Amino acid sequence: MHSVGKSWLLLTGFILFYIIYLLFGALVFSSIERPVEDKLRHDMDALKQEFLNQSCVNAASLELFLVKVLTANKYGVSVLRNSSATSNWDLASSMFFANTLVTTVGYGHTTPLSDTGKAFSILYALIGVPFTMLVLTACVQRLMFPLVHAPVGLLQRSGMEPRPATAVHFLLLLVFMVLCFFVAPAAVFSTLEVSWSFLDGVYFSFISLCTIGLGDFVPGMQPGQKYRQLYQVSVMVYLFVGLMMMYLLLRTFHKMADLHGLTTFLQLPRCEESDQDEDREPIVESKRDDQTPPYLTDKAASKPLEPGSQPSYNTINKG
Amino acid sequence: MHSVGKSWLLLTGFILFYIIYLLFGALVFSSIERPVEDKLRHDMDALKQEFLNQSCVNAASLELFLVKVLTANKYGVSVLRNSSATSNWDLASSMFFANTLVTTVGYGHTTPLSDTGKAFSILYALIGVPFTMLVLTACVQRLMFPLVHAPVGLLQRSGMEPRPATAVHFLLLLVFMVLCFFVAPAAVFSTLEVSWSFLDGVYFSFISLCTIGLGDFVPGMQPGQKYRQLYQVSVMVYLFVGLMMMYLLLRTFHKMADLHGLTTFLQLPRCEESDQDEDREPIVESKRDDQTPPYLTDKAASKPLEPGSQPSYNTINKG
Repeated sequence: MHSVGKSWLLLTGFILFYIIYLLFGALVFSSIERPVEDKLRHDMDALKQEFLNQSCVNAASLELFLVKVLTANKYGVSVLRNSSATSNWDLASSMFFANTLVTTVGYGHTTPLSDTGKAFSILYALIGVPFTMLVLTACVQRLMFPLVHAPVGLLQRSGMEPRPATAVHFLLLLVFMVLCFFVAPAAVFSTLEVSWSFLDGVYFSFISLCTIGLGDFVPGMQPGQKYRQLYQVSVMVYLFVGLMMMYLLLRTFHKMADLHGLTTFLQLPRCEESDQDEDREPIVESKRDDQTPPYLTDKAASKPLEPGSQPSYNTINKG
Repeated sequence: MHSVGKSWLLLTGFILFYIIYLLFGALVFSSIERPVEDKLRHDMDALKQEFLNQSCVNAASLELFLVKVLTANKYGVSVLRNSSATSNWDLASSMFFANTLVTTVGYGHTTPLSDTGKAFSILYALIGVPFTMLVLTACVQRLMFPLVHAPVGLLQRSGMEPRPATAVHFLLLLVFMVLCFFVAPAAVFSTLEVSWSFLDGVYFSFISLCTIGLGDFVPGMQPGQKYRQLYQVSVMVYLFVGLMMMYLLLRTFHKMADLHGLTTFLQLPRCEESDQDEDREPIVESKRDDQTPPYLTDKAASKPLEPGSQPSYNTINKG
């Protein structure tokens, strides 16, 4: 049990450090970008006032005005009256931005204005992106038993063959994923965001959880949003858990493709089962036949704690 | 040699299908979005003209005008005079958009305007993202020998120990990557794009190749860009090759971390060597010692063509 405790301690440490890293990023981004944003916002207000004070608006002055308006808008600073109250670089928004950097979603609804901000973004992502992948991998490893190995075992015990069992399990997981991470959030978003339709919600969830992050729909951006900061933190949690589940789904698909001989057909690396925690268990209960390579069964029998020596999808002969 | 030919045929097929898939996406996006964009562009021109014809501009009318301008801008339609000539949904731009979808970079500098476009984006990415991952994986597999296994072997033959050899090789690969995929492109971009500094170029390359894709810097967007379509296709090729190299770098790092016992320490899945093509060769020339688990050396000796049975990083004892 010592290694079990160590394993969970490590995961807790990872998640804690992840949160601290996001908070640290938020503080730095906020302190770098907020003054630049305030200055730009102030300049835009002055520009707008000056434009309004003109006795006559001609095409040239309008063009010049619009160039400045659109440039400021690119950096997330709007000239509209009701949007000037909320900053893109308060603590919650900065944390949201840091989160979109490290998860590689990158909406781009707000982007660093200063050179210092750009340089810091590079440094921050350089450490943050691999670390986030590490945390997601570690979390997925712990979820493989309750969400993949256990249900497949249950299906097998109820009399199913290994291959159909993994296919049925994958389909069930897919339906669960679609309902809980696309349909339900879309319903919530289309309720909370005034201008979003249900399709917009599904589109946002999909574009986000594939880490495409186009940024045409970003929650919590409408002016006068209630509990904006809490909402942004909730969206961050949704993104993290959603990405974790997407990764789990992908890994389960890879394992299933492996078992069905698809990876061999496509000549891709096989999904080696080498989870090294206490949850490790064969995804299918191995019904060994004569064609199983002896070294795999030997390994499984004699070295149960050796990394990479567990019976897995691979112990089942592909037909 | 039959399987060698088949393997390369499959890869060529993948890449051809990838290009066809991008072209298909470009045609569909262009035919869906172009009419909507044209209408919006026309409306914006009319709105601008109407605004200019006002005898007196007041705060309310300016606010209403700006709301519409910024909304159109969100969808990539600018009211500025010199930007109205180029469409975001011509064939090259649509292909560029399709490419940012399937690679999950997602700049968001142009986004679908219509509901049909959004729904098609979801469907298109649903197939395109896994397929792109497949193509990238297949390409990286073929590059592992010339760029990883061969150089590490060379370093070892020159008298280096396996572990330092992999570390030196990784550092060399990293320097090559930084020079060829960050510094050189940044120099090119800062020359071709009027408003980009060198830092902007590095920032764009980094944000793109990490698939963050904020979209504050997108090449080929300035009005009156020469050879715009050729430029966009070149950027697409750069993105594809760059992503492939990033994936190769990540995989090499994973292998090195494996060899240095880092994955065991972090309790992560080990990077199993199971490339199934003719290029497969141990990343380090195995200097077996007594501590090497016998099943690994047996496997390597007796089953040279069995998937997952190759001598690899794992044949070297970690200690």
